[in-house]
Amino acid sequence: MPVVRNIAAFVQQLHAGDERLLMRALARHDDVQVASVLEILTPGEQDRVLQLLPIERRAEVLGSMRSEIAAGIVGRLAPEEAADLLEELDADDAVDILGLFGPAQLRQILARVDAEEAEDIEELLAYGDSTAGGLMSLDVFRVRKDTTVAEAIRMVQEAEDLPQTSFYLYVVDELGRLIGITTLRKLVTSKPDMPIHAIMDADIVHVTADTDQEKVAEIASRYDLVAIPVVDQQLRMLGVVTIDDIVDVIREEATEDILKMAGAGQELVDTRSFWSSFRARMPWLFTAAVGGLLVAVSLQGFEDALRAVPALALFMPVVAGMGGNVGTQSSTIVVRGIAVGYIEGSRIGRLLVREIALGASLGMIYGTMISVAAPFLGATADNPLGLGLVITFGMAGCMIIAAAVGTSVPLVLHRFNVDPAIATGPFVTTSVDILGLLFYFWLATITMDVTV
Amino acid sequence: MPVVRNIAAFVQQLHAGDERLLMRALARHDDVQVASVLEILTPGEQDRVLQLLPIERRAEVLGSMRSEIAAGIVGRLAPEEAADLLEELDADDAVDILGLFGPAQLRQILARVDAEEAEDIEELLAYGDSTAGGLMSLDVFRVRKDTTVAEAIRMVQEAEDLPQTSFYLYVVDELGRLIGITTLRKLVTSKPDMPIHAIMDADIVHVTADTDQEKVAEIASRYDLVAIPVVDQQLRMLGVVTIDDIVDVIREEATEDILKMAGAGQELVDTRSFWSSFRARMPWLFTAAVGGLLVAVSLQGFEDALRAVPALALFMPVVAGMGGNVGTQSSTIVVRGIAVGYIEGSRIGRLLVREIALGASLGMIYGTMISVAAPFLGATADNPLGLGLVITFGMAGCMIIAAAVGTSVPLVLHRFNVDPAIATGPFVTTSVDILGLLFYFWLATITMDVTV
Repeated sequence: MPVVRNIAAFVQQLHAGDERLLMRALARHDDVQVASVLEILTPGEQDRVLQLLPIERRAEVLGSMRSEIAAGIVGRLAPEEAADLLEELDADDAVDILGLFGPAQLRQILARVDAEEAEDIEELLAYGDSTAGGLMSLDVFRVRKDTTVAEAIRMVQEAEDLPQTSFYLYVVDELGRLIGITTLRKLVTSKPDMPIHAIMDADIVHVTADTDQEKVAEIASRYDLVAIPVVDQQLRMLGVVTIDDIVDVIREEATEDILKMAGAGQELVDTRSFWSSFRARMPWLFTAAVGGLLVAVSLQGFEDALRAVPALALFMPVVAGMGGNVGTQSSTIVVRGIAVGYIEGSRIGRLLVREIALGASLGMIYGTMISVAAPFLGATADNPLGLGLVITFGMAGCMIIAAAVGTSVPLVLHRFNVDPAIATGPFVTTSVDILGLLFYFWLATITMDVTV
Repeated sequence: MPVVRNIAAFVQQLHAGDERLLMRALARHDDVQVASVLEILTPGEQDRVLQLLPIERRAEVLGSMRSEIAAGIVGRLAPEEAADLLEELDADDAVDILGLFGPAQLRQILARVDAEEAEDIEELLAYGDSTAGGLMSLDVFRVRKDTTVAEAIRMVQEAEDLPQTSFYLYVVDELGRLIGITTLRKLVTSKPDMPIHAIMDADIVHVTADTDQEKVAEIASRYDLVAIPVVDQQLRMLGVVTIDDIVDVIREEATEDILKMAGAGQELVDTRSFWSSFRARMPWLFTAAVGGLLVAVSLQGFEDALRAVPALALFMPVVAGMGGNVGTQSSTIVVRGIAVGYIEGSRIGRLLVREIALGASLGMIYGTMISVAAPFLGATADNPLGLGLVITFGMAGCMIIAAAVGTSVPLVLHRFNVDPAIATGPFVTTSVDILGLLFYFWLATITMDVTV
């Protein structure tokens, strides 16, 4: 259902300019579907579609889009128009969009938003982007602890704009401190004259406004929560982080981890400029370049061996590459294991042994395979047996080294509180290249010197 | 809060065998906390802690654990005990655990579970593990469409074991087909004698039992849903997938994607045996080995160049390695972009241009850096200028090739419905090695032949 059946046709109609057809197409799809189409259009196309949407749908569609893209659209509107649209959104969604603007543009828009909403937005903007405060919604249903069940039900009945995802009623004391939680279901199954504190659940999982979003997601998923209340240091109720925002956090964090492991920055923003991508990738490549230089320098002693048996050079890429692959496999398992909490003290030894055993056995198998296959493919040497042995054992050695390094580097980095996702990659490749190839050439000199 | 403050102390108490202290520690922590401690203990320790827990907490703790670990614990119990515990769980949680058992053990346990629960479990087990059917809970609140509001409220009041996370009432017609959805809040704000179909929302997002779990997660996160109803082909209501299970799916899928990109299998199960890891990694390494062999074969023509300038070999790892890094960065961005839906037709051209420009500029910078630094580190050649030029332009060329290949391979695989996460890696490395190094050596022969 959520897929608009024929995006190509839609874009074609857009360019043909048949407004009636377009409006009919828009009416047939829900806000989320329209939002997902908008996301893949060009800025000009996005603006045209937005103009064609009935005013009352625009905010909903905007709220269903990825915030970077929504920010692009809002940024192209006149400040009055932008303010009108953002007023229709929940403050936390408006903040996701406004947080991406520069201070000047932000001020221009905020000045035109109505005072109460502007205050909410400014309050939320003050919290760190990736904290519970930055994620939370201020629309929560608070009830004082001495409210009766009947009164609370009346409050629910009379409340106007309860957020759709608010499933809990939060019970606070006279100082506004969160002391319990209850549900509408509990209310309708309790006696009307009971005070609410008698039916609340006082066992509450909560976070503070400065809790990191990754931690919030971890807690929510551990406790199967649909919403987590956010409090300040005095336990006063500030707002609530809802599960839809938590789901977004989990997706973002996964993307971040994947990109970090490849040294490709932390954010997947395809509208990101050339320069920000450039800057994101430079440090990792710098490390790799320095590492590569070290490899070249440390292999210098083997120039004579290379002159005697240039075929050794031909197999350098496969020896180093297979090592690199095994190293990456081991380190990926460890890095991800650390991220999701699989890897703990007691298991490290067993893990290391297993990885090394895997490296050794896979290395012997593929080393042998390559040595045996090479002559058939025309890769000959004066001493094919010697070369074969060097390749087989060189590869096995390199893969053992790779498994050991790939498993231990992230563990060591983690121990010293360095994010293993970010630093493991170039470290592992470089040390595998250096140690593995040194071993390979050393093996060549001791094996082949004798017979060449 | 969710962290047990002193796991080491807890384990120590466990080994000291002071049961009173241990039971007090267990009483101080909630089910989720105890579950997270259990997950990092050895099997023997897990069994002891479970024995110390009051019977009524055991099922809750088990239900809060990762299902593979819970399955380990349940598997060590006598079938009667296992059945007693599983009966206390929701059928969908029980299924997550039971799905990991072999048919014999499964039958033994199921025979001892009470008939109704066993039927539910068998129904769920019949669905695919990674489909909406396999994820869903059967505990849903169904109301017939002609029920009045007052009757529905009474049903909610009298319902005994409504699942905690059920926030919706599902409205069905006389054939059991899902026709609408409503909330308790809507009930308490409506007139008691209204029929429920008059207050329901008929605009329902739903999935069928065979919808892939990744799709279910995508829909839930797009629509900000807390629960998605699951129907059969005739639109009859079967159950509901709740957000807590969706969160687990999103985490699993992220892990799977990360591991696949490194060719390290799909599941992060650290209790997985040596052999299953071995099998998971073999195919990727086989591809890499064949690729490496092709590299060796295709570089054979350059043995004479190597004999003349063995220093060329020393810089092979850094040239190929930098290319591999850029290729991985490009392909990671594209693979992840495809997974989260960032990358669509209209943007591919721009993306390719940007990636190639990045490869070219970063290649020139680091190529120059290495050429300039190499002589200072003692890497000399008869013709240092020639070697420098070959390294600089060879690296730039290799990185351009890498960026182009890294960007296009996943796009092409995706177009042909091959999962890009799984196949991109070895493809990119091998082609970068072959094409990049061929270019490097070709550059060397035309540049240095003249002057050597």
